[in-house]
Amino acid sequence: MKTLNVDLADRSYPIFIGHGLLSDASLLTPYIHGSQVMIVSNDTVAPIYLQKVLSLLDDYDVATCILPDGEQYKTLNTLDKVYEALLTHNFTRRCTLIALGGGVVGDITGFAAASYQRGVKFLQIPTTLLAQVDSSVGGKTGVNHPLGKNMIGAFHQPECVIADTDTLNTLDDRQLSSGISEVIKYGLINDAEFFNWLESNVSKLLNRDPEALAYAIELSCRDKANIVAQDERESGVRALLNLGHTFGHAIETGTGYGNWLHGEAIACGMSMAATLSLHQGWVTEQALQRVNKILLAANLPILPPTTMTLKQFMDIMAVDKKNLDKKLRLILMKDIGQSFISDDFDTQKLEQTITEGLSQAQQQ
Amino acid sequence: MKTLNVDLADRSYPIFIGHGLLSDASLLTPYIHGSQVMIVSNDTVAPIYLQKVLSLLDDYDVATCILPDGEQYKTLNTLDKVYEALLTHNFTRRCTLIALGGGVVGDITGFAAASYQRGVKFLQIPTTLLAQVDSSVGGKTGVNHPLGKNMIGAFHQPECVIADTDTLNTLDDRQLSSGISEVIKYGLINDAEFFNWLESNVSKLLNRDPEALAYAIELSCRDKANIVAQDERESGVRALLNLGHTFGHAIETGTGYGNWLHGEAIACGMSMAATLSLHQGWVTEQALQRVNKILLAANLPILPPTTMTLKQFMDIMAVDKKNLDKKLRLILMKDIGQSFISDDFDTQKLEQTITEGLSQAQQQ
Repeated sequence: MKTLNVDLADRSYPIFIGHGLLSDASLLTPYIHGSQVMIVSNDTVAPIYLQKVLSLLDDYDVATCILPDGEQYKTLNTLDKVYEALLTHNFTRRCTLIALGGGVVGDITGFAAASYQRGVKFLQIPTTLLAQVDSSVGGKTGVNHPLGKNMIGAFHQPECVIADTDTLNTLDDRQLSSGISEVIKYGLINDAEFFNWLESNVSKLLNRDPEALAYAIELSCRDKANIVAQDERESGVRALLNLGHTFGHAIETGTGYGNWLHGEAIACGMSMAATLSLHQGWVTEQALQRVNKILLAANLPILPPTTMTLKQFMDIMAVDKKNLDKKLRLILMKDIGQSFISDDFDTQKLEQTITEGLSQAQQQ
Repeated sequence: MKTLNVDLADRSYPIFIGHGLLSDASLLTPYIHGSQVMIVSNDTVAPIYLQKVLSLLDDYDVATCILPDGEQYKTLNTLDKVYEALLTHNFTRRCTLIALGGGVVGDITGFAAASYQRGVKFLQIPTTLLAQVDSSVGGKTGVNHPLGKNMIGAFHQPECVIADTDTLNTLDDRQLSSGISEVIKYGLINDAEFFNWLESNVSKLLNRDPEALAYAIELSCRDKANIVAQDERESGVRALLNLGHTFGHAIETGTGYGNWLHGEAIACGMSMAATLSLHQGWVTEQALQRVNKILLAANLPILPPTTMTLKQFMDIMAVDKKNLDKKLRLILMKDIGQSFISDDFDTQKLEQTITEGLSQAQQQ
């Protein structure tokens, strides 16, 4: 087992990475406050792992709240179900929430913990690769609004994260690829060496090689934690983590949450960011090809949905939260492992990138 | 004008207290971040004061969101209206929210600010006495849940508070008394000298004497700020501010939000806390009489609603958030100005207090 410490002063916490961790109560119980524990999970994950986690918690007053599975349920309404469960069981502000599931469960549970009685403790047991490498670091919690993704939420750090690679054995192939998309992102942002490793090892990840997975999770969490430690509340450098996300969110919003997986939308977004960077003359054609090649190797899409239009992209990106004081900011690239925050790209080249992408998608 | 500084390290902020303050843009604009301003108000306050505030904000991109007036609208649904207004106007995370209204508007706006895009700035223009002396200090924000009052929320401090005593001239008498209830609370908690002053000056407050009001607001905010500065997130001494609130919340929940005003419920709750303290032998009969006398002088109720039952009180108080790990904690009294947090009162005496109150109420 590897332990990675996310360094955030009095909000620091450990991430435990390895296999068989869900059999080890000693990783869990030191991080539980009070005697009341609410496990929040979804109807896909609970049938597989809930009993296992419950068996670690014999000494606690445990309740469960099982949500429907899917990004389309990451709403205020579903959040209210968690509040209702907490109140129905008379949970006090000394309770602890456990998020058992993917990113949606983690984000909702984290925000429920941030806002129930103005803040209670929570910890995370992410069961998807995406959740293990993304939402397990950084403390972003929240829900979507019909008018925009992740528009409602809070920064709220967990007490600990338990990333058991065994849970990835039950993940379907599409979800696994979606997680690999986010792993590739860390290489592209600022870790060219990791990107090189991924180019050689993406097939091992697809084959669920436990050592390769543990290594990829550890490096992803380390790279993300380094950025988050510099900028916990996203006033600067943390925006780099949004590489591919402005395009990606537009795709998720434009196609309706849950139709494209988050990692799929981000994959296409990273390819579009690389393409725009090429049109700006900032990266080489060869770098763009490396980006597209690894994404395709991971069974990820690089072209936008044919159902969308240029106008839809532009309209949705205009409300994207990275858009400070009406100036659209994107994360673009100078090279593999050299991404940067930019608001001085050419809008025509942005439109060209989207139009070309849509037209190529239609030709396929 | 008086300026009181609420001392919370990097979250410190000023409260401006006086009359004519809503004509002075220089109190407002230094605290606005970015160019986008959303004024949140309600349909009672907006017709009277919205234009005045708008006229101070010519240089900003201003939008408004007018909510229905009343505690029964302090819900997740109403909160969603604020999110919707922010998103419809493409507000970024560099916007500023202004709460113009009473405590409900302040609490909803503050929580919207705490959670919109994971946190934006806000400032408060409280227009009721209750909001000026209560929600303007301490950073508690949030909404009610059908299963419990103030169960959803966050700690989020405003950039500044502008308490203009002129706004109290349009307040109806019942609302004014409700505010005086909270003022009396500060005397009872730990300021016997202020309580003495109130005993002599309650009629001036009822007559809206501007100097008496400004003095009462200043002392209330000062007393509350001193407690909050010691314990921003309510892990200890801050609980004293809940004097009368566990009983009071039970009344508000039991009668349906909005039927009893908050200050009315708290007044009855303070009388019940004093009565239980008497039954415990902790305060004298004379102290209880002083409590009841000043509350009655301020036209406040001291007996619970006849529609409620002992069981209802006990059931609702069991989910009250002051109830840590299932042990009910109440704020009780040793004397005027000497309140304390207690969980070692006799449950039978608590039930006696409620039963007697209900039976006296029925005899009236």
